[in-house]
Amino acid sequence: MQVTIVHIKVLPQFIDSFVEACRLNHNASVRESGNLRFDVLQSAEDPQVFVLYEAYANESQAAQHKQTAHYRQWRDTVADWMAEPRLGVPYHGLFPA
Amino acid sequence: MQVTIVHIKVLPQFIDSFVEACRLNHNASVRESGNLRFDVLQSAEDPQVFVLYEAYANESQAAQHKQTAHYRQWRDTVADWMAEPRLGVPYHGLFPA
Repeated sequence: MQVTIVHIKVLPQFIDSFVEACRLNHNASVRESGNLRFDVLQSAEDPQVFVLYEAYANESQAAQHKQTAHYRQWRDTVADWMAEPRLGVPYHGLFPA
Repeated sequence: MQVTIVHIKVLPQFIDSFVEACRLNHNASVRESGNLRFDVLQSAEDPQVFVLYEAYANESQAAQHKQTAHYRQWRDTVADWMAEPRLGVPYHGLFPA
């Protein structure tokens, strides 16, 4: 399992729009081949702070996500709504094996 | 869905032991009532860096995890293996709803 944890801080006036864009991205991403999780999280401490937790069965399928129309639409839609550049951190999943 | 992302940095000489302790914790935690994910991740960039991604259906079930024997055993076993104090960050899961 290959996981990317994406850390995002959204400008306050775009929070609702960002959540809706992530809903659409979530709904399409969980239908991708090899997708295991596509969780959209909001910080319990700061409503501007979000995490996308994206897990795929292997690296090839994780990379393929960035070629999809729904990813590109999400990326372009939310580009101007962020308070700072987003940060994606890659991990290897150990368990579940 | 309530999620805690726990960030952990392990001393190099304890990495293998830490992975084994997390395997036992994972195997028991996924059997808890309300557990939705208990993913154990290792950074793709730094083998000392781990994440536990713990998701429960609600806050009560998330809190109950810390009362279990397997959590307490994990906590006590790994206490002296960390390079710095671990950090747990709470999130509300938006999607999946």
